[in-house]
Amino acid sequence: MAKKELRIGMIGYGFMGRAHSNAYAKVNHFFDLEYRPVLAAACARNAEAVQAFADNWGYASIETDWRKLIERSDIDAIDICVPNNLHREIAIAAAKAGKAILCEKPLSMNTQEGEEMCQAVEAAGVPNMVWYNYRRVPAVTLAKNIVDSGQLGKIFHYRANFLQDWTISSEVPQGGGALWRLDAAAAGSGVTGDLLAHCIDTALWLNGGIRDVVAMTETFVKERMHVETGKVEPVGIDDACAFLCHFENGSLGLFESTRYARGHKALYTFEINGEHGSVRWDLHDLHRLEFFDHRDAGATRGWRSIHVTDHGGEHPYMDRWWVPGLQIGYEHSFVHQVADFLAGYAEGKAVGPTFRDALETQKVCDAVLASAAGRNWQAVG
Amino acid sequence: MAKKELRIGMIGYGFMGRAHSNAYAKVNHFFDLEYRPVLAAACARNAEAVQAFADNWGYASIETDWRKLIERSDIDAIDICVPNNLHREIAIAAAKAGKAILCEKPLSMNTQEGEEMCQAVEAAGVPNMVWYNYRRVPAVTLAKNIVDSGQLGKIFHYRANFLQDWTISSEVPQGGGALWRLDAAAAGSGVTGDLLAHCIDTALWLNGGIRDVVAMTETFVKERMHVETGKVEPVGIDDACAFLCHFENGSLGLFESTRYARGHKALYTFEINGEHGSVRWDLHDLHRLEFFDHRDAGATRGWRSIHVTDHGGEHPYMDRWWVPGLQIGYEHSFVHQVADFLAGYAEGKAVGPTFRDALETQKVCDAVLASAAGRNWQAVG
Amino acid sequence: MAKKELRIGMIGYGFMGRAHSNAYAKVNHFFDLEYRPVLAAACARNAEAVQAFADNWGYASIETDWRKLIERSDIDAIDICVPNNLHREIAIAAAKAGKAILCEKPLSMNTQEGEEMCQAVEAAGVPNMVWYNYRRVPAVTLAKNIVDSGQLGKIFHYRANFLQDWTISSEVPQGGGALWRLDAAAAGSGVTGDLLAHCIDTALWLNGGIRDVVAMTETFVKERMHVETGKVEPVGIDDACAFLCHFENGSLGLFESTRYARGHKALYTFEINGEHGSVRWDLHDLHRLEFFDHRDAGATRGWRSIHVTDHGGEHPYMDRWWVPGLQIGYEHSFVHQVADFLAGYAEGKAVGPTFRDALETQKVCDAVLASAAGRNWQAVG
Amino acid sequence: MAKKELRIGMIGYGFMGRAHSNAYAKVNHFFDLEYRPVLAAACARNAEAVQAFADNWGYASIETDWRKLIERSDIDAIDICVPNNLHREIAIAAAKAGKAILCEKPLSMNTQEGEEMCQAVEAAGVPNMVWYNYRRVPAVTLAKNIVDSGQLGKIFHYRANFLQDWTISSEVPQGGGALWRLDAAAAGSGVTGDLLAHCIDTALWLNGGIRDVVAMTETFVKERMHVETGKVEPVGIDDACAFLCHFENGSLGLFESTRYARGHKALYTFEINGEHGSVRWDLHDLHRLEFFDHRDAGATRGWRSIHVTDHGGEHPYMDRWWVPGLQIGYEHSFVHQVADFLAGYAEGKAVGPTFRDALETQKVCDAVLASAAGRNWQAVG
Repeated sequence: MAKKELRIGMIGYGFMGRAHSNAYAKVNHFFDLEYRPVLAAACARNAEAVQAFADNWGYASIETDWRKLIERSDIDAIDICVPNNLHREIAIAAAKAGKAILCEKPLSMNTQEGEEMCQAVEAAGVPNMVWYNYRRVPAVTLAKNIVDSGQLGKIFHYRANFLQDWTISSEVPQGGGALWRLDAAAAGSGVTGDLLAHCIDTALWLNGGIRDVVAMTETFVKERMHVETGKVEPVGIDDACAFLCHFENGSLGLFESTRYARGHKALYTFEINGEHGSVRWDLHDLHRLEFFDHRDAGATRGWRSIHVTDHGGEHPYMDRWWVPGLQIGYEHSFVHQVADFLAGYAEGKAVGPTFRDALETQKVCDAVLASAAGRNWQAVG
Repeated sequence: MAKKELRIGMIGYGFMGRAHSNAYAKVNHFFDLEYRPVLAAACARNAEAVQAFADNWGYASIETDWRKLIERSDIDAIDICVPNNLHREIAIAAAKAGKAILCEKPLSMNTQEGEEMCQAVEAAGVPNMVWYNYRRVPAVTLAKNIVDSGQLGKIFHYRANFLQDWTISSEVPQGGGALWRLDAAAAGSGVTGDLLAHCIDTALWLNGGIRDVVAMTETFVKERMHVETGKVEPVGIDDACAFLCHFENGSLGLFESTRYARGHKALYTFEINGEHGSVRWDLHDLHRLEFFDHRDAGATRGWRSIHVTDHGGEHPYMDRWWVPGLQIGYEHSFVHQVADFLAGYAEGKAVGPTFRDALETQKVCDAVLASAAGRNWQAVG
Repeated sequence: MAKKELRIGMIGYGFMGRAHSNAYAKVNHFFDLEYRPVLAAACARNAEAVQAFADNWGYASIETDWRKLIERSDIDAIDICVPNNLHREIAIAAAKAGKAILCEKPLSMNTQEGEEMCQAVEAAGVPNMVWYNYRRVPAVTLAKNIVDSGQLGKIFHYRANFLQDWTISSEVPQGGGALWRLDAAAAGSGVTGDLLAHCIDTALWLNGGIRDVVAMTETFVKERMHVETGKVEPVGIDDACAFLCHFENGSLGLFESTRYARGHKALYTFEINGEHGSVRWDLHDLHRLEFFDHRDAGATRGWRSIHVTDHGGEHPYMDRWWVPGLQIGYEHSFVHQVADFLAGYAEGKAVGPTFRDALETQKVCDAVLASAAGRNWQAVG
Repeated sequence: MAKKELRIGMIGYGFMGRAHSNAYAKVNHFFDLEYRPVLAAACARNAEAVQAFADNWGYASIETDWRKLIERSDIDAIDICVPNNLHREIAIAAAKAGKAILCEKPLSMNTQEGEEMCQAVEAAGVPNMVWYNYRRVPAVTLAKNIVDSGQLGKIFHYRANFLQDWTISSEVPQGGGALWRLDAAAAGSGVTGDLLAHCIDTALWLNGGIRDVVAMTETFVKERMHVETGKVEPVGIDDACAFLCHFENGSLGLFESTRYARGHKALYTFEINGEHGSVRWDLHDLHRLEFFDHRDAGATRGWRSIHVTDHGGEHPYMDRWWVPGLQIGYEHSFVHQVADFLAGYAEGKAVGPTFRDALETQKVCDAVLASAAGRNWQAVG
């Protein structure tokens, strides 16, 4: 049976543009779905660059003005892969044009913008999703299943960090291309919106809402060359951010992110401690989940290193891939997210994290930044 | 610039058919190559099944007789993904038809067959390659670079094993579909050709030739239901095999494989000990390489866990993928092999492991099986 | 040559009484020292219990009143192994009596008490030391050597935690015997003084002073049976405590401790991230230090797992023990501390952590508790 | 109650002399036993050296002739810590003198000598034990408990290795002091008797008898300076040895040992794979046992890393030590062996491994060496 088409208009062609395109290209080879994504158009200001991107991935056409893309009637869904400061305007326009929207994280520059975006998609009734892809790493989904099953019991602690080391050199400039993440005007914040947002999204999903926070931020390198202006300019982003919090379920949270942790490229870890058990995960070995079950017999109780590659429906998503023991990687989390989105699309069901879900992360980020600025506890939302 | 086409005729649609098809579909998204594979035709006896496979992967046509496929002038390369007992006949016919050949491992049922295949491709002058894919796991390629750089010094020891646990139950039948690996008539041997062949290929590549072997095999479950005959029949394959050997460079080797190692799904590990350092690797965490350098300062000397995800040309293949810290998986080894094959194809250069390279592995396998049968040392080749 | 004697008067016979006694009994078998500890007397209120303890360890006599012990002229040093609320009075009396003092950690119930204790030992000019034993785990001492060598460069981050799980059950009572740690009147605080104090001592030693803190504490089980009163009473201690801080060197700190982290018995870990490298350590595998050196060649850079058992003076203390590769355990940290104390005693040199050193930890603990109570940042000291 | 005395006469003062003396000195501090060892006399040819040793450990007297020691009526037990070539004569004389005997491993130079020693102790009816200390590492004892409980089911595989790297340099001489292990005349064999003997003892204990073996040995450095003769002489020992075997229970064995495995100081590991589960252990982290239980629920099945430090009788020996989470080390295995020996001594019960138990290991070693020499399979015993 021929599959129905979901015609994608991709805005942006950077790291995330590649990751999403790969997911669209791959998903139907591995998942049996009613819909298939069609790479209809890629859009960016630089015509030459976006044409090369389109050629590489098989996008059928290009646009250099995102407004044109949104106007096209042969596009069903807009994928927003541009810097954070452009999310709001594009998303609202796309919603008004009746397009489904898949927006890179974080949702927005701040809660206010995010709220406007939520209202726009909800008013338009269009499917919407934010690319917090780590929810769909099989080991993370398995953690969710374990938590939801009640096997951990009452939760006491949640801790997460996301550690990198790529901006330690003061020679790294800010702004321009991939370096927009160092430019406060484009990114809104530094590690808070870039890295902690991932940690927060996972935490809210696994452990529920956060009540209040107290935070500390630091900018270790105070001035960097700005690529666009050619001048050394003050750095406006947070290089590092840590916060303490209370979850609504009474558990305590501890979060940290930095780009100054030598030796860690993408150490996103989380750990949850409950009355009866604990789980922990590390992006550096994303195909494993550690699980401790206190109800195991005492003599042989120990942290289990679960190689999340089994079949038979036990390990989320894995029966679609190879054979037990053979690991998948980072890119597959995007494939899973597309697969879930397409399944929801076919049934008219929302697929999380929606814009509204992602707004909750935005609220925590805003509270964190306000707390760091004010050196005080801040309620969330 | 439009890419040149390499039109693929795929024979078989099982696990390896999927892995290779995925590699063909992906390779040009990530590697800048003169050629691109075109999925021209898929071939298998079961028309319905192969049509579904073709539809899923985008093969333009199907065949149900591999002889017909080989006759087609619109096919440049034949990919052989069928049980081992069919390799020889197909490969020789394809060579005579002037096709490039990509053949699943092991090359053949035995050395004699393999020698005939080598002579056929060499006589025809067609590009040929065997899918010993683990050479192209970046961590394994890095190990090769380290060995070749001389950093380990004189080699003393090489040890490898490949442990699985999927045939422990006597309820697992033999023969039919994916279970042909339990059927001696189709597979030739059990773990020796299936798993040890991988270990041997890597070893020959990293550490050079093997001089002699002494081996032990075992078949733990002596009889299993045969799917095709419907009867309980003797099991002709080796469930487990271990051997000791001398390498030509004077180092000692130790190899083991089994499908009865509870808790291991695909534990392929190797370790090399040299005068100045050692390396070790494990397929269960394939994105890591362990490296010990005795020339490090004494107080801080330790096994290094290298997360093989860096860019800048330092970690093989990885600059084509995501960003440092984000791991790839099993499937990418096939993508790399296709990329290398296409690059060699464009330049008219052989890309290893060729049939002739793979024949060396076959010779070791034959010596191993002869040694186990005769309970004595056997020279290789 | 006969060794000089340091005649020990031990007060208390619990877990720490055993650990210290073992260290005294062992130290001269492994370290070549001018002095040897003599187990002169053990003291506790319960005569029968302390006699059994004395018999077991070979203490030559017992006392049931610590004041009597201090008055004895045949005692050179007092070892204080009683609950925290008794430290001050005993230490001051012992100082006045001219005894050397070895005091269990934390130094005191609070900074005020600690200051009085410091003044007493300094006025009396008696040798004094606090049993923050983890400084003398060889891997931790090695971390100190690495930091002091400048190999890490400028420090950006310090994080530590101490996680346990032994008080999750609400059936665990408070007060009485080993359970005095749950009784605020005896312990002063919960995990802050018990566990975080260890983390803070190590941090101050490795990374210098702490400027300010913001903290959060929690008491998950609000009421517990009190063993001494036989009644269910409010729990006054902190079950969990986490804090953020700024070090004086500009680095950021993150500390956490709890007795509600299922699966962790004594997970004391720390990690330091500097410009050129990082180290991390875990009490659960105390004989290993992880070290990352960014100045290693790119292709083979990785976290080194240093098995801290080498000889030749490279690994602190280890040339006194067995042969390379053979690990020591928890108890040896106390042996090392005694060895260092005796060496300093012979030379008339102070051996850290002295009371004055330990007072700095007390100041941080006080600031942490004040911050948690006031929900605000607190300067230290 | 005063303890009964077991008066020890120690012969030798090297590495093992220290390890045993430490065990004797410590055992009663931690184990409640009817007997206590008394360090009655130390014996060695070099009076000055043995006096220093005696002073250090508290031996009450010295002897320079082991025959004199054996004649003394104030000695109850002889501990043999001298090179292998002296075991037989001393043990037989001690047995005739009615002494209990604790003999370092391996029992003897070969099976013939060992058989004579067994007959001597059995004729004399004296308690006897061989120091295969690894049986008493708590994690190893736990492995024994798991195997004996039947939790692993039918056993398919046993593999072990013992890897070191201390003789790689050709500058290391042979003979003299600690280097007697490189001298065939004193040691009998190289890694086979020194290291594989440990692996074999554990294997026989955990998995039963070995039926036949095929082995390979190598001497990488063919000539070394001999310390006693001052000349470069041929090296008579095996630097490396590996063998395959069949156990009597039908499982397959794989053993390897070497002193040329760069990066490994004392990597003694074993792994057992059974129908329902597996265990593995590594001396480098001796306080952990890895356990896989296939009967765990599929989704959360994984290798458990058991931190063998729990109390309550669940983890062997550990309730005698510190608190959960705090590890012990290498030396404690000797303490446990003494504790068990003393308990058996009090009850008149043999404590394994007895001489007769250790003779079985000797038979395997002899078969291994014969197989390596003859390049053929050898039956054991």
